[in-house]
Amino acid sequence: MKLHHVPGSRSSRVRWLLEELGVDCQIEGYKLGDPALKSSTYLAKNPLGRVPTFEDGDTVFYESGAIVQYLLERFGDGRLEPPVGGESRALYLQWFHFAEATLMPPMGVIMGNRFVLREEDRSQKALRIARIQLGKALGVIGSALDDAEYLVDDRFSAADIMTGYSATLLKSVGELPDEPKSVHAWLARLAQRPAYQVAFAGGFGG
Amino acid sequence: MKLHHVPGSRSSRVRWLLEELGVDCQIEGYKLGDPALKSSTYLAKNPLGRVPTFEDGDTVFYESGAIVQYLLERFGDGRLEPPVGGESRALYLQWFHFAEATLMPPMGVIMGNRFVLREEDRSQKALRIARIQLGKALGVIGSALDDAEYLVDDRFSAADIMTGYSATLLKSVGELPDEPKSVHAWLARLAQRPAYQVAFAGGFGG
Repeated sequence: MKLHHVPGSRSSRVRWLLEELGVDCQIEGYKLGDPALKSSTYLAKNPLGRVPTFEDGDTVFYESGAIVQYLLERFGDGRLEPPVGGESRALYLQWFHFAEATLMPPMGVIMGNRFVLREEDRSQKALRIARIQLGKALGVIGSALDDAEYLVDDRFSAADIMTGYSATLLKSVGELPDEPKSVHAWLARLAQRPAYQVAFAGGFGG
Repeated sequence: MKLHHVPGSRSSRVRWLLEELGVDCQIEGYKLGDPALKSSTYLAKNPLGRVPTFEDGDTVFYESGAIVQYLLERFGDGRLEPPVGGESRALYLQWFHFAEATLMPPMGVIMGNRFVLREEDRSQKALRIARIQLGKALGVIGSALDDAEYLVDDRFSAADIMTGYSATLLKSVGELPDEPKSVHAWLARLAQRPAYQVAFAGGFGG
């Protein structure tokens, strides 16, 4: 198996999960903006030229959420997620999907208006609205963590990996607000995990 | 069971799946911007005041992808997704997650710069970049559909529901480009399904 990985990118979710599960996998590393990601060889695997891309024999696919779910189905053996049909399954699925569907879109707008667009093309209003949306989303996570160490069942799960990656990214670009404090405490707990440290080694961008 | 639903919103994915599976569910309808979605009763179920929210007894949760996965696990009985461990499982997961992680974020920027922001706060450049990103994402879907009627195994699946909702939304706001033609042909096939017609009844916004 092979993971195509840019340090600090969404591929860190897969790197993190592989370490948590103790699954052996070749890591093919790139830097942010690496021209190799636009080569015809790479685009044949992932036509959008992004990471992560994952190879398992002839099976080649992308989308971090998909790869995390696939690896859990193949190697999880009941670890890192509540069982199908279990009482907390719905909440686990909610937090799993929350990361990309609710937390990351405003983050994309913020990054665009801070780094991608030229000064004259930026919108301070769009930036402000995105920060408000992000603050609300973080508030919801914060409430879930007020009396719990982790998002689901007070036990570390792949939902913490999906959402914890996003919080790490926010912090690294200075967009994780001081509140809620419970989000910071949770992120500090996550950062103590050896698998987290492996996943985020190399900083951001390689 | 109860689905909180705004016609044309992401809750249409759940409405669509319920019909495909023939699962009975109470539908609680709202209009876009309905103040009921900001009532304390509703916010206790979904603190972001969005739809869909889904209730199954005491289990209350949100995120359309989570609800779709939950319903498949509970009522799918092997329908509408390749089996875990099956050859096309990875591709199915990829297209399932693609809808929110890759297709919808540029759509959010487009909507923001067309409808949400005031004229003077919009960025034509941000709009153009988002349309380019969206075009690339649609191009990838188009390639997958060049020689196939559906995204996975040439058979209708929940991945078509997740991504087909997004294509329907794009079309309804005039943001589905003329190319790729294969995406239009696929969307026309989806729109012929009785369950699709039930899901999108009421137009957009209620």
